[in-house]
Amino acid sequence: MTQHRASLPANPASQPFAGRLGGNQEFILDPKNVDNVQTLKRVPDASPFISISEIFNLRGFLEIELWKAAVTEFIGTLLLVWITGFIAAHSSLTPAPQPSPTSGVYSTPIYLGPLTGGVTNMIILALFIYTLGPVSGAHLNPMITISTFTARLTSFPRMVLYVAFQTGGGAIGGLLLRVSFGSRNFQAGGCFLDSSLIPIGDIFALEFMADFTLLFLAFGVGLDPRQRETFGPALGPFLVGLTLGVLSFGTGFTRTGYGGSSMNPARCTGIFVGSRFPEWAWVVWVSPICASIIHGLIYWAFPPWTYPKSNRSESTLA
Amino acid sequence: MTQHRASLPANPASQPFAGRLGGNQEFILDPKNVDNVQTLKRVPDASPFISISEIFNLRGFLEIELWKAAVTEFIGTLLLVWITGFIAAHSSLTPAPQPSPTSGVYSTPIYLGPLTGGVTNMIILALFIYTLGPVSGAHLNPMITISTFTARLTSFPRMVLYVAFQTGGGAIGGLLLRVSFGSRNFQAGGCFLDSSLIPIGDIFALEFMADFTLLFLAFGVGLDPRQRETFGPALGPFLVGLTLGVLSFGTGFTRTGYGGSSMNPARCTGIFVGSRFPEWAWVVWVSPICASIIHGLIYWAFPPWTYPKSNRSESTLA
Amino acid sequence: MTQHRASLPANPASQPFAGRLGGNQEFILDPKNVDNVQTLKRVPDASPFISISEIFNLRGFLEIELWKAAVTEFIGTLLLVWITGFIAAHSSLTPAPQPSPTSGVYSTPIYLGPLTGGVTNMIILALFIYTLGPVSGAHLNPMITISTFTARLTSFPRMVLYVAFQTGGGAIGGLLLRVSFGSRNFQAGGCFLDSSLIPIGDIFALEFMADFTLLFLAFGVGLDPRQRETFGPALGPFLVGLTLGVLSFGTGFTRTGYGGSSMNPARCTGIFVGSRFPEWAWVVWVSPICASIIHGLIYWAFPPWTYPKSNRSESTLA
Amino acid sequence: MTQHRASLPANPASQPFAGRLGGNQEFILDPKNVDNVQTLKRVPDASPFISISEIFNLRGFLEIELWKAAVTEFIGTLLLVWITGFIAAHSSLTPAPQPSPTSGVYSTPIYLGPLTGGVTNMIILALFIYTLGPVSGAHLNPMITISTFTARLTSFPRMVLYVAFQTGGGAIGGLLLRVSFGSRNFQAGGCFLDSSLIPIGDIFALEFMADFTLLFLAFGVGLDPRQRETFGPALGPFLVGLTLGVLSFGTGFTRTGYGGSSMNPARCTGIFVGSRFPEWAWVVWVSPICASIIHGLIYWAFPPWTYPKSNRSESTLA
Repeated sequence: MTQHRASLPANPASQPFAGRLGGNQEFILDPKNVDNVQTLKRVPDASPFISISEIFNLRGFLEIELWKAAVTEFIGTLLLVWITGFIAAHSSLTPAPQPSPTSGVYSTPIYLGPLTGGVTNMIILALFIYTLGPVSGAHLNPMITISTFTARLTSFPRMVLYVAFQTGGGAIGGLLLRVSFGSRNFQAGGCFLDSSLIPIGDIFALEFMADFTLLFLAFGVGLDPRQRETFGPALGPFLVGLTLGVLSFGTGFTRTGYGGSSMNPARCTGIFVGSRFPEWAWVVWVSPICASIIHGLIYWAFPPWTYPKSNRSESTLA
Repeated sequence: MTQHRASLPANPASQPFAGRLGGNQEFILDPKNVDNVQTLKRVPDASPFISISEIFNLRGFLEIELWKAAVTEFIGTLLLVWITGFIAAHSSLTPAPQPSPTSGVYSTPIYLGPLTGGVTNMIILALFIYTLGPVSGAHLNPMITISTFTARLTSFPRMVLYVAFQTGGGAIGGLLLRVSFGSRNFQAGGCFLDSSLIPIGDIFALEFMADFTLLFLAFGVGLDPRQRETFGPALGPFLVGLTLGVLSFGTGFTRTGYGGSSMNPARCTGIFVGSRFPEWAWVVWVSPICASIIHGLIYWAFPPWTYPKSNRSESTLA
Repeated sequence: MTQHRASLPANPASQPFAGRLGGNQEFILDPKNVDNVQTLKRVPDASPFISISEIFNLRGFLEIELWKAAVTEFIGTLLLVWITGFIAAHSSLTPAPQPSPTSGVYSTPIYLGPLTGGVTNMIILALFIYTLGPVSGAHLNPMITISTFTARLTSFPRMVLYVAFQTGGGAIGGLLLRVSFGSRNFQAGGCFLDSSLIPIGDIFALEFMADFTLLFLAFGVGLDPRQRETFGPALGPFLVGLTLGVLSFGTGFTRTGYGGSSMNPARCTGIFVGSRFPEWAWVVWVSPICASIIHGLIYWAFPPWTYPKSNRSESTLA
Repeated sequence: MTQHRASLPANPASQPFAGRLGGNQEFILDPKNVDNVQTLKRVPDASPFISISEIFNLRGFLEIELWKAAVTEFIGTLLLVWITGFIAAHSSLTPAPQPSPTSGVYSTPIYLGPLTGGVTNMIILALFIYTLGPVSGAHLNPMITISTFTARLTSFPRMVLYVAFQTGGGAIGGLLLRVSFGSRNFQAGGCFLDSSLIPIGDIFALEFMADFTLLFLAFGVGLDPRQRETFGPALGPFLVGLTLGVLSFGTGFTRTGYGGSSMNPARCTGIFVGSRFPEWAWVVWVSPICASIIHGLIYWAFPPWTYPKSNRSESTLA
């Protein structure tokens, strides 16, 4: 029997979408091609640089493919919150560990917890992006979705659906986490801190800086079309995972009482649903929204595409 | 003497099969090509989207190539269970280790055992998938076989033969493990827990979540035809190994008395044969079957192929 | 001055040989090509599927290129045994280490020794295969040579010469090891165990399982022609090294008194020559030969090539 | 918008040289091409297999490009000696560490020092070879230069200039090391041992074996033209770095009082200039020269090229 590799018997099913993490440039439509006009009317974010009217066009809510992608985000976020939460979970009843006199923080859970969480976050997020990148774009994080919206890579209907389903998936994941841990008395790295030691302003500043750094790097390694020349689509998901891993590790052990930055509102919301809501819970939503808005302004000022907007408008109007 | 690389003197022998882990898209037949009709009658799972009548066609039991592939699964599972079991084995007579007051679980076998098991699992599974991927599809795990069956990538005869031979291989591997350890008083990571500390419902929930996450990611990185665009066939086996490694590590140290998720019924069955059966042994089979069924429903709702099913039926009937 | 890369001024010298580790499919002759008949008469293992009469044709002993390859194996095995033996060597006079009450085996030489040996084995073997793969095929191990003989990829004369020169190289390497260690009172990982703790049957079972697993994976990742499609010749040597590394690490710390599997008769023979022969020394030869024979039977039943044997006989007889 | 990658605006400047580490086969002239005759008269080692009279032709001392390359070697060796020396440096006044009763050497500087040194050596050497490979060939080590001379890949004038400038660079690097360490009372891994514990014959044997192993592997992975088929020029420098790293780590912790093999006369000479000369300093020069001569004989007996020497003489004489 001979080998068969020439032609695939079926077309892989992938929707064009400009805000895709990992290999996004492989799945973009050229608006100057008249064949794409019909698709772009239904899915305006199939191409970058959407006009304001297209972004807020509510027809997107009627697209079945968009709902399918949102369900995929639901499942992905549920699994992601469950596994990264379970790895990072520890009892909230035992007292916080103290640095050791000989090794400082380095031989204590203060350091080794974020190290474990950071490395596994890196691997797990990369695997989820590889898996869901060609399906929904593998956002799995309201902050990524909101920031692609402010960068005009995602339409308003997609943003609303994704954020809602991500948050729902995170909440279910948090409830499953409570079953898995056997109690609601747990905390998880990235979503706990000792607010008696850290003023609320400092919490916001730490979270905002980590969020903005993640956005800046994630857009650079996962959404910048120029990277096609340098490392192609195979390395992108791994680099986004590395970014999250090093930030969640790096923010977790330096300040006494601070367990690391959240950088994913759906994950912390899910963990709070599974355990308990702290009084500073709003920070994990307000800070990413602020970071997304500022990042969107920078993206508008320094776009990585040089596509002439005028042509686009003409062809879609034609 | 000059170099000779132009033409191979013989054709590598590889059977088309749609449920192949790692590079599956390289070995699929196009059912619209009339040359393939005879092959597809004998091996219906040589192409994705099998009809229900084809899946349950029992002629497959007469295919000698299918039995050969099942024997390969037997040998592979035997070796895989033996080596991963031996690495993870420790005496069941010594008392369970306790966290240290300064380092928590991190300097104890509670953490270092799953870490060793997770990293070696990752490497060993990747090597087995590289080795057997072009032969039998490198399932080596009844859960993978059952889930490809529920995803309509594997025919019923192949599923029955694979699961039977995998389980048999695991059992022989477990007996060899007893000889290698020199006693039946051993436990192995992924297949032990203290049922006095963990209710049976929690055991099922933990196992189900890990199983479903593994299936979700393994299909994404090892069986999704869209990945041909992003990372090609060389990276797939490594990513599947990474998935299993990080899940078996990540579930192994968080909850007191829980030694990590199984995620392979043949492995735990073999280890139980070699040591002793616990009362919760049924979980390692029931949970993967539930996860496979739910995953199959999702796969049916969100297929990664856009192949028109009607054409297939016509061409195979022609 | 411009760049010069168009044509090589000389041809790289490489002999066709079907049993080459790493990129073997690049160096095989097509027996149906009449130009190759003369070469195949002299070097029958330049192509897979040798007939029994060709395998045992003793003309091969007159081939100067075969002796050159055997000398290369001598040098390679000598260096390999010396460096991997020196890394794994420790005094045989100090008592065996005991597990620690808090960390189990993980902070003791019982675990850290095999870890060091496994990781360095992986790197060193990969480097030697990269270096010698295009020369002699980089067996460097009588077990690999004997198993390619039982798989009909290596002729009888080549097998005899390789095994003899590998064993001689290992013996000289062992004597140099005695000088390097400054005493014959040493042991080295993979070649020592406490026979008062482990019955001889268990020693054989452990060694046989590790040998067979190594053969199974090494043929899969280093000698299977179907891998040309999946990962090409650059990754093969690294994967063979990874296989040996993880097996020598994984078998070394689990059972009290067992220092890990040998998996290379020339290495242990050399180390025994340099230190002292134990009473179970025969296991390191008998077990690989048994594993090679069983692997040869499986290889014969499930060949990775579909080359029609009849054609070969005709063309070489023509 | 289309992609722009077609033509480079300028030609990279690179001199042909057969003894180049990493991708050497890309920069060799074909002596049968009459266009190259003039270049080969000036730079005979632009092609392998130089005749004896060409090797010793002293016109090479008048080539300005050769002096430029030697100055590059000076700078590279200076930086390499400084950074690898500083990483490996520790005070020579504190007493030698003792193995711990529970962890043996593994938790002491005896093991952790060479581990740090080996891993950083691997990375740093690979980076220097990537950097200087296309310039001077990235020898940075008199042993590499001398061995390419004995392998007839480097002319006598180039060998003299390179060794002199490398040694000078190492000496300046050693003096900068004294300033960096703030004292001349330091030792550095690879260049110290306790000669009261190790006889001079054993020192020579250890150094010779490590040198020969390094040459054998470095020629195999960095200078063998057959590797073009297997892994191409991108992996070579990394593999040479890996070779040095694993050898300097692997020889450093086994024998009590032996701090690891030198394998680079310029590095140890520099470190001795910066600290103090021991009585066994001659070993770091005599042993590499012996290893180079023996390696040259093997290279002559088993050449990796099949270039007919007679043709070369004709075309250069024509």
